[in-house]
Amino acid sequence: MRDQLALFAPPREAPSGDDAVRVKLVVAYDGRGFAGFAPNVGVRTVGGTLEAALERVLRHPVELAVAGRTDAGVHATGQVVSFDARADGLDLPRVQRAVNRMLRPAIVVRSADVAPPGFDARFSATARRYRYLVLNRSTPDPFLAATAWHVEAPLDLSRMRLACDPLIGQHDFSSFCRRPKPDGEVSLVRRVLDARWTDEGDGLLRFDIAATAFCHQMVRSIVGTLVDVGRGRRRAGEVKGILVARDRSAAGEPAPPHGLSLEEVVYG
Amino acid sequence: MRDQLALFAPPREAPSGDDAVRVKLVVAYDGRGFAGFAPNVGVRTVGGTLEAALERVLRHPVELAVAGRTDAGVHATGQVVSFDARADGLDLPRVQRAVNRMLRPAIVVRSADVAPPGFDARFSATARRYRYLVLNRSTPDPFLAATAWHVEAPLDLSRMRLACDPLIGQHDFSSFCRRPKPDGEVSLVRRVLDARWTDEGDGLLRFDIAATAFCHQMVRSIVGTLVDVGRGRRRAGEVKGILVARDRSAAGEPAPPHGLSLEEVVYG
Repeated sequence: MRDQLALFAPPREAPSGDDAVRVKLVVAYDGRGFAGFAPNVGVRTVGGTLEAALERVLRHPVELAVAGRTDAGVHATGQVVSFDARADGLDLPRVQRAVNRMLRPAIVVRSADVAPPGFDARFSATARRYRYLVLNRSTPDPFLAATAWHVEAPLDLSRMRLACDPLIGQHDFSSFCRRPKPDGEVSLVRRVLDARWTDEGDGLLRFDIAATAFCHQMVRSIVGTLVDVGRGRRRAGEVKGILVARDRSAAGEPAPPHGLSLEEVVYG
Repeated sequence: MRDQLALFAPPREAPSGDDAVRVKLVVAYDGRGFAGFAPNVGVRTVGGTLEAALERVLRHPVELAVAGRTDAGVHATGQVVSFDARADGLDLPRVQRAVNRMLRPAIVVRSADVAPPGFDARFSATARRYRYLVLNRSTPDPFLAATAWHVEAPLDLSRMRLACDPLIGQHDFSSFCRRPKPDGEVSLVRRVLDARWTDEGDGLLRFDIAATAFCHQMVRSIVGTLVDVGRGRRRAGEVKGILVARDRSAAGEPAPPHGLSLEEVVYG
């Protein structure tokens, strides 16, 4: 009995030095029911749930680095995390299967690979791509209720496309970001690489945006503002002025979280 | 106060004769959380929920005819129902909006139209098409968990396609159907118009089957049997023998309900 319990007791020490292997996971999750990604005492988060499962399988402490700290209710199909695992006896396919058995269907590890020693899911990333879905028609769809924002008012897609253009390039996105905490980063300058709307048919509009990095609530605030333009509440030409204002109150309300998904993280 | 209450009190009489208009609704629903379609005292069914909402909006008794009596957990994107409504003051777009406000996102009325007097969602239908999704790969997908059967064992799609062919045409499907209740229909002869597998990529396999009508658990039993073939538990050549046996125990176990969806009903 004592030996059996010992099997489940994590060694006290985290892996370090020669005993450590850097691991990279690609993770998908349904953000409903999670208070965002970042581990936080007393609430159910994606990161906290994933760390706990990895610690149970690996039997040592795990601390995750994450490419995109998604908010409460935001989904991911291509989130990336990294952590150190003990090299001794590490079997990543087994770890992946065991974690998936514990956490599916809400959280799924899509791949698990050994990464170069210095790899960090957050700091090694050179770009992130998010997707936002808007269902723009009068009747809702039960099968898009979890992943698309249902907007009944007709949207003018050509105006929403025009309004995207000024976002591309390097700008101070203070108007589209929640003010950082006093101890946090100060600069809200980000480089947007691509931003485009695609008409997927049957009223489904898809917004893809890629940037080197995003600040807090940036995609949702941009989508909220672009939907204001599509609805005729703002002109497409206002977006440049909103950027220049560097004032959170100049932009629209953030779009709801459930339309948003982190799709891809680019490295190297 | 009395007048306000009267607004919500349904007239005792169902519409009939000149006062009645036959209405056709196309309905989508997420079958999770419902004990099937057929209204049944004491359980939450799609039909019972829809009837109650229509009665609240129309303020008279409503009795639905339905094209496909889907089982517990089965979805629909193109279910069709019909019923009689009072002609006097009938505003179908308003009825549709009001019902959708009450029942979304689980149940959504996609369209509401006046139908010819003799129209019956069940008996006027000339064909039904169902779709079944199988996710055939080792890792699950959080966003397909509600709509696809996750089968980890590799499936041989070419064998599953071969096994479909004998199903097409008119046959006694007793081997694939739950035995009808003593007071129910006796013949389990049905005409399958089309049955095909499509590889949608990333391990997602889609089965489409159309027939003049289906008997109880027919699609799920067929899919269960075809997946047995794909897994190598049965040979493709066995399907003809299973049909001829007219014995429920000859076919495979029914596939789980959540992979199934009623997609389309054809009339006239």
